[in-house]
Amino acid sequence: MRNIMLIIEYEGTNYSGWQYQENAISVQRIIEEAIQSIEGERIKLIGSGRTDARVHALYQVANFFTNSDIPGYSFKYVLNTKLPGDITIIDSKEVDEDFHSRFSATHKKYKYLVYNGKMPKALYRNFSYHIRKELNLEDMRIASKYLLGTHDFNSFKSSKAVVRSSIRTINAISIEKNKDFVEISIDGDSFLRNMVRIIVGTLVEIGLGKRNRDDIVNILEAKNRKAAGHTAPPQGLFLERVFYD
Amino acid sequence: MRNIMLIIEYEGTNYSGWQYQENAISVQRIIEEAIQSIEGERIKLIGSGRTDARVHALYQVANFFTNSDIPGYSFKYVLNTKLPGDITIIDSKEVDEDFHSRFSATHKKYKYLVYNGKMPKALYRNFSYHIRKELNLEDMRIASKYLLGTHDFNSFKSSKAVVRSSIRTINAISIEKNKDFVEISIDGDSFLRNMVRIIVGTLVEIGLGKRNRDDIVNILEAKNRKAAGHTAPPQGLFLERVFYD
Repeated sequence: MRNIMLIIEYEGTNYSGWQYQENAISVQRIIEEAIQSIEGERIKLIGSGRTDARVHALYQVANFFTNSDIPGYSFKYVLNTKLPGDITIIDSKEVDEDFHSRFSATHKKYKYLVYNGKMPKALYRNFSYHIRKELNLEDMRIASKYLLGTHDFNSFKSSKAVVRSSIRTINAISIEKNKDFVEISIDGDSFLRNMVRIIVGTLVEIGLGKRNRDDIVNILEAKNRKAAGHTAPPQGLFLERVFYD
Repeated sequence: MRNIMLIIEYEGTNYSGWQYQENAISVQRIIEEAIQSIEGERIKLIGSGRTDARVHALYQVANFFTNSDIPGYSFKYVLNTKLPGDITIIDSKEVDEDFHSRFSATHKKYKYLVYNGKMPKALYRNFSYHIRKELNLEDMRIASKYLLGTHDFNSFKSSKAVVRSSIRTINAISIEKNKDFVEISIDGDSFLRNMVRIIVGTLVEIGLGKRNRDDIVNILEAKNRKAAGHTAPPQGLFLERVFYD
């Protein structure tokens, strides 16, 4: 069987998330159905990881095994004729049999967009988190530094998520302002469920002065979801890139 | 009666355009109904000009007369609680009785976004015109200069539009590239129906080498819609600002 890798961009607004669910329209399902409509064979699409409902991806990676003789690079053209406009295959190629979108990934980068203007912004309502009061970015940047490196991020994961270990490594965090937008970028080896959104929610509370910037140390030590801030809403989150060796 | 000015941002994707139409959902109608739901009085909203279905506005201006005693600056807060997320009032204030959104405007600026990447871009499908082949921006810039100043733009108006005069003045045109996006900005005293979209469609044909960059002179002289290029699709167009003295 040949192993085909897809690089996918999608707007998550109208989907229940990446992952296949009964009775819901997921991005994975739509792409699987598009592949099946071409090849007639049932395939299982392996994604680099889930994204929640309304979360977007600029560069999601997935792979699948097929008996098809369509050249790897051609899948993008064929699939884009089948897919709705809010899901596009930006690249496709044949890869080694042992390539696995999730297990082969070395690290991932997310960005989160906060709109920090006074009035709501119609054109970004599905692509940002609107915070009216001006954020103190200096406090947010100092707080974010405590998260760098390897920690137990149990406080920053959904209490619903069950995992063997909540130890994760964050390689870089940046917080940049461009006009009324604040872009928070986080690069890490891998992420727990809702981890980026809880980090952002906590940093926003620090930026609003509702929490001290040094609280992050106590939150990490607590290893308890209740210690951290709120989960920032999904529509501001973008899976920006998945990296491989 | 008091005269209230609104500054409005909207995503045009789900509307039939600005202007009120029977049996269609227009931006004007939605805002008029929101005002009426607050005040109980029927009002007529005067816009600075129409936008077509799927065209966006970052700064549309409108005004209406009311007997309400709501302070002018408060309308934005009250209306935003009533309006859907894709229409937002970014400012409101009371203005002189003789202010008229259309007649008082001195000039307007539109921008048009072309996405010039090889593969379709899911996140910009409702906000750009996708041209796969690389555009020759130098030719487009040289061509655009012929449009500056006062001309008869009859070739650049919808053949359906009936107007007394098709003489208009363009003050500035710029064509800037940022990564795979090409942004065409046009500032003019006023615009004919579809004028910006026909200018963009013609410039795109020049950028693709389908037309000579000097053709613009002949197109202007022809004073005939058939001489110009295609009408670029609506979703790439943004009313960027309306200016007043």
